[in-house]
Amino acid sequence: MNVLVINSGSSSFKYQLIDMNTEASLCSGLVERIGETQGKLTHKVMPGTAEEKKFTVEQPFPDHVAGMKTVVDILTDPERGVIKDKSEIHAIGHRVVQGGETFSKSVVVDSVVRAAIHDNIPLAPLHNPANLSGIEVAQELFPGVPSVAVFDTEFHQTMPAKAYLYPLPTSLYKELKIRRYGFHGTSHRFVTKQAAKFLGKKADEVNLVTCHLGNGCSMAAVKNGQCIDTSMGMTPLAGLMMGTRCGDIDPAILPFLAENKGLTIKEIDAILNKESGLKGVCGMNDMRDIHTARLEKGDDKAQLAFEMFCYRIKQYIGAYIATVGPIDAVVFTAGVGENDEYMRAEVCKDMEHLGIEIDLEENNTRRGVARSISKGGKVQVLIIPTNEELEIAQATVDVLKG
Amino acid sequence: MNVLVINSGSSSFKYQLIDMNTEASLCSGLVERIGETQGKLTHKVMPGTAEEKKFTVEQPFPDHVAGMKTVVDILTDPERGVIKDKSEIHAIGHRVVQGGETFSKSVVVDSVVRAAIHDNIPLAPLHNPANLSGIEVAQELFPGVPSVAVFDTEFHQTMPAKAYLYPLPTSLYKELKIRRYGFHGTSHRFVTKQAAKFLGKKADEVNLVTCHLGNGCSMAAVKNGQCIDTSMGMTPLAGLMMGTRCGDIDPAILPFLAENKGLTIKEIDAILNKESGLKGVCGMNDMRDIHTARLEKGDDKAQLAFEMFCYRIKQYIGAYIATVGPIDAVVFTAGVGENDEYMRAEVCKDMEHLGIEIDLEENNTRRGVARSISKGGKVQVLIIPTNEELEIAQATVDVLKG
Repeated sequence: MNVLVINSGSSSFKYQLIDMNTEASLCSGLVERIGETQGKLTHKVMPGTAEEKKFTVEQPFPDHVAGMKTVVDILTDPERGVIKDKSEIHAIGHRVVQGGETFSKSVVVDSVVRAAIHDNIPLAPLHNPANLSGIEVAQELFPGVPSVAVFDTEFHQTMPAKAYLYPLPTSLYKELKIRRYGFHGTSHRFVTKQAAKFLGKKADEVNLVTCHLGNGCSMAAVKNGQCIDTSMGMTPLAGLMMGTRCGDIDPAILPFLAENKGLTIKEIDAILNKESGLKGVCGMNDMRDIHTARLEKGDDKAQLAFEMFCYRIKQYIGAYIATVGPIDAVVFTAGVGENDEYMRAEVCKDMEHLGIEIDLEENNTRRGVARSISKGGKVQVLIIPTNEELEIAQATVDVLKG
Repeated sequence: MNVLVINSGSSSFKYQLIDMNTEASLCSGLVERIGETQGKLTHKVMPGTAEEKKFTVEQPFPDHVAGMKTVVDILTDPERGVIKDKSEIHAIGHRVVQGGETFSKSVVVDSVVRAAIHDNIPLAPLHNPANLSGIEVAQELFPGVPSVAVFDTEFHQTMPAKAYLYPLPTSLYKELKIRRYGFHGTSHRFVTKQAAKFLGKKADEVNLVTCHLGNGCSMAAVKNGQCIDTSMGMTPLAGLMMGTRCGDIDPAILPFLAENKGLTIKEIDAILNKESGLKGVCGMNDMRDIHTARLEKGDDKAQLAFEMFCYRIKQYIGAYIATVGPIDAVVFTAGVGENDEYMRAEVCKDMEHLGIEIDLEENNTRRGVARSISKGGKVQVLIIPTNEELEIAQATVDVLKG
């Protein structure tokens, strides 16, 4: 069974075709600059393997349908295609960012589901419309092929009220659905299952703190395989320090900036989302640049940004250990989580009293597979490569099998 | 040596006269509704002792000077006064809320200090002007008596940059001094010293998580007797859930409310400060009412508010244990901290893996003195009655002795 995974943005979309018999990615790609005078399609056959082949197409893509048609042409191309024709795409899995309280599981997309995704647009005004157009394009081009929506928020729907409610007037929750939703749920769920497998435990018996650290960063407290708290909030702005997002700050800073700097609330929102985080503190938002600057150039601001970033992760680990009870493991995943040994060393430093201690040599080695970097200690420290596309494809298969 | 402690608000002030030879409070009181048609003065002689005598005066107090003059009359009254004349007031200690980065210690007030307190008004627009007028009144009425300013923020000035800086553009810190300051520092410092004494450790060797839980709530991470992190932020809105304040929330909720509810940022600020916290969730902000409602009337919202309140304290304990390293004790203080056994039991529940376990019987007993409620466990759980006035008086003496 082949599942096409689609992650649709407003002017771009990513896709990946996965053979679920082998869980191998047959091809993956990115269509970008949709609607601009010149668009770009980047396509990889057998990505991440020794046989990987990459090529690009530059041409205008007036809309998502045009982009997707070109993708289908490439997928079925006699020479470089990976399937004979469209009928070899058996199902489509769509990433949808915000499922609100409507969706605690992945679902087959029908008109009711589309309407519900539409209803959640106020909570994700940038993402849900783009995700919806991806769904519509797929249903137009692949009539009769089932589409499944997999939500970034669904893994977090098991949080108890004391974790998902804010201490705000309850009317704001009832009227406007203001509450913690959390994001990156597909990744947190994927690494939770992988961690259970690695530890030889059942998926519903594993207790974890999972750290998804990429350009966006979030953590989850996982008890018996279920999410009971997460660091992102109503939006992906909350929680950890990120590339350009501030994470948790004193909410009174917003009115203070309006009063003392004469900024509108929209301008403030843009600063908190796009000019803050690592970038705000040191001018760089790629952790690799930050390491070069602090280690090779003695850049104090880069050093500070790095320390702040790690400090908040450390505090959330403590908070979530208090929340979950004894944990089996701390899991690091996503770009920074999997590849940044400096970050992991700094986060895990002086955490022996919490049962966390890493083997620095193992930490400094890259392997690309799930593994432990613990050095004794009651709590395992795991690096688990995330694979959100595979998790979406798996959820798609599971939903269709019923 | 007698020290008069003054805590001046905009339309009221509290005072207390402390004999520092015995550390006994000779009298204490509150002047309120200053500037209104009818004011009120409540005065207690030997407060908190078996000989306590309380009386009230109702009359107009056109300004703070008038209120303070009446206080002096009462203090020196032949019958019910506690001193013969003003000359028996040897020093005055003033609570000042916001010392900014200017003050990391208490200081004798002179014109330079007054100007610096004035400079910090943007960071505490309600409190610092009121504190300043208290200082001015005292200097007018007690010429030649030294005044010392003791700042709510000074205990927290030892935080490292990674704890006090926000992941915001650094220009906002440089231009507008946006950073974490923390408050209740006088209380956190007092209980830190008391905890060290109780544990038989030197004040600069004790490692603690201190919980000041009253109508306002804050926690501090104390390493070697020094504050290294605290839950309140640039303002007292941040951190824990409080009586009417929300504490930490997703900062994107503010622009969301502006956009979806048409509120101005000032209106939103007022909701977060005055209509949120316990009150927002269940309509009550006094924890005693909340217990009555949830335990005797089965009020679900009261139960939820209580659980949310405790949940956040529990998470901060975990976060600060990760921050400090192995701690000697968790300290509960202030109205709710000292007197609410339900809260302490809920916060400390299922924390054995962090070395925290309380004796429920001891927890349920009230004693009014510093004591441990631990039941084994590596971490002591202490209840320590706070005494901010005594700490201010002590700081005043220490500064004057040099």
